Amino acid sequence: MKTQYYTAMSVNGYLADENNSLDWLFQFGDVESMQDSYPRFIEQIGAVAMGSTTYEWVLNHEKLLEHPEKWPYSIPSWVFSTRQLPLVPGADIRLVQGDVARVHAEMVEAAAGKNIWIAGGGDLVGQFHDHGLLDELILTVAPVMLRAGAPLLPRNVVTPPMKLVRVEQHGDVYAVLVYAVQREAGGA
Amino acid sequence: MKTQYYTAMSVNGYLADENNSLDWLFQFGDVESMQDSYPRFIEQIGAVAMGSTTYEWVLNHEKLLEHPEKWPYSIPSWVFSTRQLPLVPGADIRLVQGDVARVHAEMVEAAAGKNIWIAGGGDLVGQFHDHGLLDELILTVAPVMLRAGAPLLPRNVVTPPMKLVRVEQHGDVYAVLVYAVQREAGGA
Repeated sequence: MKTQYYTAMSVNGYLADENNSLDWLFQFGDVESMQDSYPRFIEQIGAVAMGSTTYEWVLNHEKLLEHPEKWPYSIPSWVFSTRQLPLVPGADIRLVQGDVARVHAEMVEAAAGKNIWIAGGGDLVGQFHDHGLLDELILTVAPVMLRAGAPLLPRNVVTPPMKLVRVEQHGDVYAVLVYAVQREAGGA
Repeated sequence: MKTQYYTAMSVNGYLADENNSLDWLFQFGDVESMQDSYPRFIEQIGAVAMGSTTYEWVLNHEKLLEHPEKWPYSIPSWVFSTRQLPLVPGADIRLVQGDVARVHAEMVEAAAGKNIWIAGGGDLVGQFHDHGLLDELILTVAPVMLRAGAPLLPRNVVTPPMKLVRVEQHGDVYAVLVYAVQREAGGA
């Protein structure tokens, strides 16, 4: 069982641009060798968590309150928010706030041996990392730079550094970088 | 002849940490497959440009005013600064300010067919990009995150996006990502 951060990013480490848009990402057509990437990832996932900005982006982008059948997950989903947010009818969405460690324990139980996905944003993933609960990053790097935006992971992860597990090239568009987070200090 | 940005960075797009330090980078020992990378790059370079922060970092890190023989370049070097900076005795260093296009023309002439290296920082590289003068990025990604620091390239490079030319994996430490900058709008 691994807790994973799977996301797309710009080359310089932004999840979304300064207008919280993903248009820079959606300009790329399908890259054939990437088509299996998400299905292979999600079939191993038993629980997902996200922050309120990520949730509201999905809510608005997919018009989920009008089309609740478009909610993309069949797995239980935790949304961290200090505000009361509209819920998608029929979807297993649990609004939570506070300690990520307690929620992580609930997610582990719900996932029943499968992996856990922290979908973002960066600070929420950082909170899981702060508690030693993040195992792996799977980063799909799109070939753009952004001047500013939502940061990938606003933390120092230096001592110990991560380990590069795998690198993939998908056409002239995507690089996928997979990193393992190390828990013991000092091991480079 | 290409104008290239060759640099190391954190996974989330910083050149240096918030204290302008590279300690996060220097923690990694030699990775054997990387040892040819810089020699193969620099032998194709005929001129280098850098900003004042980069120059002063090299000056201090190598104690060049005491040990001018440690200046690392035999090629002509342009340093962009609005201040008068100490020069390394015996080194071909040209202090300049203002329009990067004029300086680029001088560099092309000096390089005599070889490539041009813009060593950083990110805003100087951005100025070359603003003038359509940047051709290629060669990014060595170290397996760390930084909370803040000197940005890789604080610009929107989205329309057209870049093209991913090549990806390399060096042990469990470095990923090298090579991107070509596209000049024509619209070509994804």
